[in-house]
Amino acid sequence: MPSLPPHRENALRQLIQKLGLPANSSINWPLLDQALTHPSADTAHNYERLEFYGDAVLKLAASRFLYEHYPDASEGDMSVLRDVLVSDRILAEIGDRYNLERYLLLGKSLMHDQTGRLDRIAEATEALIAVLYLSGPHSLQWVQPWLEPHLQTAAQTAQQDPAQHNYKGALQELTQKHVQTLPDYRVFEVGEPSAGKQAATANLRDRFVAEVWLQGKQWGQGSGNSKKAAEQVAAKVAFLALRDELEEKP
Amino acid sequence: MPSLPPHRENALRQLIQKLGLPANSSINWPLLDQALTHPSADTAHNYERLEFYGDAVLKLAASRFLYEHYPDASEGDMSVLRDVLVSDRILAEIGDRYNLERYLLLGKSLMHDQTGRLDRIAEATEALIAVLYLSGPHSLQWVQPWLEPHLQTAAQTAQQDPAQHNYKGALQELTQKHVQTLPDYRVFEVGEPSAGKQAATANLRDRFVAEVWLQGKQWGQGSGNSKKAAEQVAAKVAFLALRDELEEKP
Repeated sequence: MPSLPPHRENALRQLIQKLGLPANSSINWPLLDQALTHPSADTAHNYERLEFYGDAVLKLAASRFLYEHYPDASEGDMSVLRDVLVSDRILAEIGDRYNLERYLLLGKSLMHDQTGRLDRIAEATEALIAVLYLSGPHSLQWVQPWLEPHLQTAAQTAQQDPAQHNYKGALQELTQKHVQTLPDYRVFEVGEPSAGKQAATANLRDRFVAEVWLQGKQWGQGSGNSKKAAEQVAAKVAFLALRDELEEKP
Repeated sequence: MPSLPPHRENALRQLIQKLGLPANSSINWPLLDQALTHPSADTAHNYERLEFYGDAVLKLAASRFLYEHYPDASEGDMSVLRDVLVSDRILAEIGDRYNLERYLLLGKSLMHDQTGRLDRIAEATEALIAVLYLSGPHSLQWVQPWLEPHLQTAAQTAQQDPAQHNYKGALQELTQKHVQTLPDYRVFEVGEPSAGKQAATANLRDRFVAEVWLQGKQWGQGSGNSKKAAEQVAAKVAFLALRDELEEKP
């Protein structure tokens, strides 16, 4: 791979130091350049494949963090928290903390475009995570120490926010407050004849599909390996949709 | 942790050798015992939390495999293949190759129960992957060499099967053959006002939601970070549903 223009490499070295890694870290600089190149700037040499890889690295880092720090949590509780930790919202927050936008090469058409800004930051953050994983000795050695404080903060916030931690409870409060009625959950086991169409939109690996109904309308659907997990996912979807509907209307 | 009964540890040592790891590997035996204990046999000391962890280890191993072996594949193509590689079907195939069922402790009620057998094998295989990851030096060092040949076989099979590799194409052939008409794709960007209800069932991280319509009925829905990826997922769901509907009826 060709070496980078000196001003680009200098900027990227600065970023690596901001992350708390030693300045002489053996980073793969062309790969880091790629991680911080949006497809609009270069259709071939861009962050898309690295984002794919980083998505998996992040999931493992989040799983390891939860497994080690929440020894008494059930698989279902850890899954709900993991969904938060790997969400675009948290990724964009992390990226913004390091001002990643400054380093991200964009096509001209997007330079003054704020739509999709958070998506781009989240995607670039995932790609950055992949580069740290690939530059280090093929383990989480460089990723975990840097990422873990962010995961810890996000997990603590999620646990303090009852809506994020327990969507079923939050949904119940919301519907009682606004429409004085409780949501109805319908759970199907995938493969059961009655699951029929419900299963069609589920994650094909999951065993249960849950639906949330309120006042004759379906507000959310989710799948999971347990009834409880499927209900939590469905409740999350319904909660976010209903909160917008019930609380943000003028 | 208490040590295992000698006959259990002997059986587990046998399994580790079958996996091709050295007999004197420093496996965490109580953890391996836990990975091969179904919740019906022990409500506390069972594989559920390890399955959660192994799910992420497998995703990373599959991502690494695809990133390294498919240097020209797009993010979307890799995502479709990764979905296959981490599927319960492939996991159960791997587990069955090592006769994992023999080592899996089950509650009495399930001992002669064939329903859910493949789910259990898939789940135990994921938990086993977590134990290998955790027993090794916190990297994929013990997982990748053992798992990679299986991933390679699965990826090759998936690529040879046009239905698995390209669900849009397979769906087109299926509908042309049986109903002489082509499916209609509707794609929405999440966050667009028109996406409204469509977005409610999508993976909240994904940017696009696709629906497959045929003869006035929706047959599949999927989400992804590109229109193409969302369409492939929706096509997969629709293909599996329609194939059952059109080809398996007497």
